[in-house]
Amino acid sequence: MSGFLHSRFSSLEAYTPGEQPRDKQYIKLNTNESPYPPSPEVLRALTERDVADLRLYSDPEGTDLREKLARLYGCGPENVFLSNGSDDILNFAFLAFSEDGAVFPSLTYSFYPVFCDLHGVDYETVDLNEDFTVNVEEMKGRGKLTVLANPNAPTGIALPLEQVEEIIASNPGHVVVIDEAYVDFGGQSAAGLIRKYDNLLVVMTYSKSRSMAGARLGFALAGRALIEDLEKIKYSTNPYNVNRLTLKLGEAAADSDEYFRKNAREIMETRTRVTDQLRALGFTAPTSSANFVFIRKTGLDGETLYRKLKDRGILIRHFSDPRIADWNRVTIGTPAEMGEFVQQVKTILEEEGLP
Amino acid sequence: MSGFLHSRFSSLEAYTPGEQPRDKQYIKLNTNESPYPPSPEVLRALTERDVADLRLYSDPEGTDLREKLARLYGCGPENVFLSNGSDDILNFAFLAFSEDGAVFPSLTYSFYPVFCDLHGVDYETVDLNEDFTVNVEEMKGRGKLTVLANPNAPTGIALPLEQVEEIIASNPGHVVVIDEAYVDFGGQSAAGLIRKYDNLLVVMTYSKSRSMAGARLGFALAGRALIEDLEKIKYSTNPYNVNRLTLKLGEAAADSDEYFRKNAREIMETRTRVTDQLRALGFTAPTSSANFVFIRKTGLDGETLYRKLKDRGILIRHFSDPRIADWNRVTIGTPAEMGEFVQQVKTILEEEGLP
Repeated sequence: MSGFLHSRFSSLEAYTPGEQPRDKQYIKLNTNESPYPPSPEVLRALTERDVADLRLYSDPEGTDLREKLARLYGCGPENVFLSNGSDDILNFAFLAFSEDGAVFPSLTYSFYPVFCDLHGVDYETVDLNEDFTVNVEEMKGRGKLTVLANPNAPTGIALPLEQVEEIIASNPGHVVVIDEAYVDFGGQSAAGLIRKYDNLLVVMTYSKSRSMAGARLGFALAGRALIEDLEKIKYSTNPYNVNRLTLKLGEAAADSDEYFRKNAREIMETRTRVTDQLRALGFTAPTSSANFVFIRKTGLDGETLYRKLKDRGILIRHFSDPRIADWNRVTIGTPAEMGEFVQQVKTILEEEGLP
Repeated sequence: MSGFLHSRFSSLEAYTPGEQPRDKQYIKLNTNESPYPPSPEVLRALTERDVADLRLYSDPEGTDLREKLARLYGCGPENVFLSNGSDDILNFAFLAFSEDGAVFPSLTYSFYPVFCDLHGVDYETVDLNEDFTVNVEEMKGRGKLTVLANPNAPTGIALPLEQVEEIIASNPGHVVVIDEAYVDFGGQSAAGLIRKYDNLLVVMTYSKSRSMAGARLGFALAGRALIEDLEKIKYSTNPYNVNRLTLKLGEAAADSDEYFRKNAREIMETRTRVTDQLRALGFTAPTSSANFVFIRKTGLDGETLYRKLKDRGILIRHFSDPRIADWNRVTIGTPAEMGEFVQQVKTILEEEGLP
C-alpha cells in the first residue's frame, strides 16, 4: 500500500478469485467455468473485419444485443442492462441502491461484503438455516438493499421462486437483487417478475452456462427506472465498458440459445451422478441446482482434500472462511474429468485410511 | 431515475460520449478514433481456439501483457496496471487517491468532474491561460490529487516534460496523474519519471494511437506501491476486468509497436496539412500534439458548423460547454477523409457568406 491511498481503504480486503496457476495443465474444477466451449455460432462469429473495426469504439448502448436478450427474456430492450461481467453490475448495484445499508445471507458469494466495504455500505448478514438453506423469514422486509444469490454459492442450493417473490414483495421501498449467475442449472428465474416489481433487479451472466467467462459479459433485467439508474452509474464510470468483440459474440450466443441449454442439461446429469457417487463415499453434499457441488466428509479436512487433489492435477475451491473450512466447492466438469476426480478422491480416502 | 437511487447521485450528470449515430455511414471525426486498422499482427492474432477458450476466465493479472508493456516502457511488470480502458483507471484513481480533494484544469477531459461527482470528491479547477495552455504555476503544490491530460483535450496542446515534472515534483504528498491518452501524437511522455517520483501515475490507452478503441484496454505505469493500490481497487470491483481476447490482441499490438508509431507519424503529417489549410481559411487552431485539432472561426457558430457538416455526412465533436460554444474538435482521419472535410468546410463558409 502506498501512503497515498484514501484512508477508508486501508483495511479493505479485496476479493480473492479462484487460483489460476500457470505451472502446469490442471483439471480446473475451481472457478465454475463451463467444461464445454461456446456454441458453434460463437466460434464462427468473428471475422478479420471485426478485428479491423476495433479501431472504433463499441456501441455504448449495446443496442443489438439488448434487443436479442429482450426477445429471449420476454421484455423490452429498455429492461436490459449490459456490463463487463456481472461483478460489474453487482458493484454498481451496491454503489447505487445502498443508501439504507444492505443485507444478504451470511454464507453466499464472498464478493458482496467486499463491495460494501469498498463503498462504505453498512451491511447485515442473515445466517443460513442448519441445512444451508436461506432463512427466508429473516430476509424479508429488512428495509435495505437485499441481495440474494439464487441458486446460492457456494452451497448450490436454490430457493423456490415463490419464496424469492415473498422477499421481493416484502421490500417494496428497497431494491432486491437476485443474482442468478447459476440459474440455468436448475434454478427458477425471477426474470418474469420484473414487470410486477419495480424494486427487482435480476443479474445474469454469460460466464457460466453460456461458456463465455473470458469474454466478460453480464446483463441485468429490471424495470425501466432501475435500468436508467444503472446506466447513469455506467456513464459516470466507463461508458464503453463492453468491448466490440464481446458484443458480437454475445449476439451469436443469444442466436444459439438452445445450445447452452443442452450443455446445462448435460452438466446437471453429470452433477446428479457425481453427487450420488460422493454420497456413496460418505460425503455430505446438499442437493445442488448450480454447476458445482459443495461437499464435506467427516474426518477429512477440507484443506487436505484440496491440497492432495492439487498435487494430483485437479483444482477445486477451498475457502479460507473458518465456518466452511471442512467444505470444498467442486465445479462440474465433463464426465471424463469428473470420473478422474471421483477416482482420485477414492485414492485419497484410502491413503487417509477413511471408510 | 427510480426512487431507489442513492440521494447523493440525484444530481449526478453522467459523461456524454461522442454520438454514434446508426442512421447512415458517416466520416467519423468526432471520437478521436484512429482511421487506420490495428497492426497486421493484431488482425491475425485470434484463432478459433482462442474463442473456444472463452469458456475460461481471463488471467486477472494479465501477466504476459504486463511483461511485454514493461519491456516497451523500460520498467518491470510490477510497474504496469491493466484495465478495461483508461477511463476505468481514471475512475479508480479518483476513487483511491482523492482524500484531500482533486484539482485539474478548467478545460480538459470532461470526464474528470464526473468521476469527482460520482465519488463525492471535492475538486477545484485551474483556468487555462488565454492561449489555452495550462497554467503550470497554479497547478503546482496544490496538496490534492492533481490530474493533467497531456496533451490536453480538447485543445490538443502539449506541455513540455520539464513543466510536467515541475508539477509532479511540487506535489510529493499527493498523486499526480498524467493522462497520456494522446501522447503518441507528439507529446513527451512522463513514463521515464516513474522511478524518480512515487506519486506519479501515468495513464495510457490502446484506444487512440494503437487503433483499438473497441477492444477496451488501458494501462498505467507507476511505482510498485501505487500499482498495488490500483490492484486492490480492481480486485474489489471486477478482478477479471480485461477479457481474454483483448489481452491476446494487446500482446500482438505490443509485439508490433513500430506499426502504430508509423501510423501516428502519418496522422501527425495529415494534422499539420489540415491545420495549415484551416488557418488559411481563417480558422484559429492551437498547435496540436494530439490526433485532433480544436478550431474556431470568427463569425461562425460552432453548433452551426457541426450541424452543417453532419448534414453532409461528416461528424465532428461539438461541446455543450458554453465557454467553448464557438469551438469544435475535429479528429484527424485519413488524408482522403480530411480532404473531404476541408472541401465541405469551404462550401459551408461560402454558404454562410464568410470570407
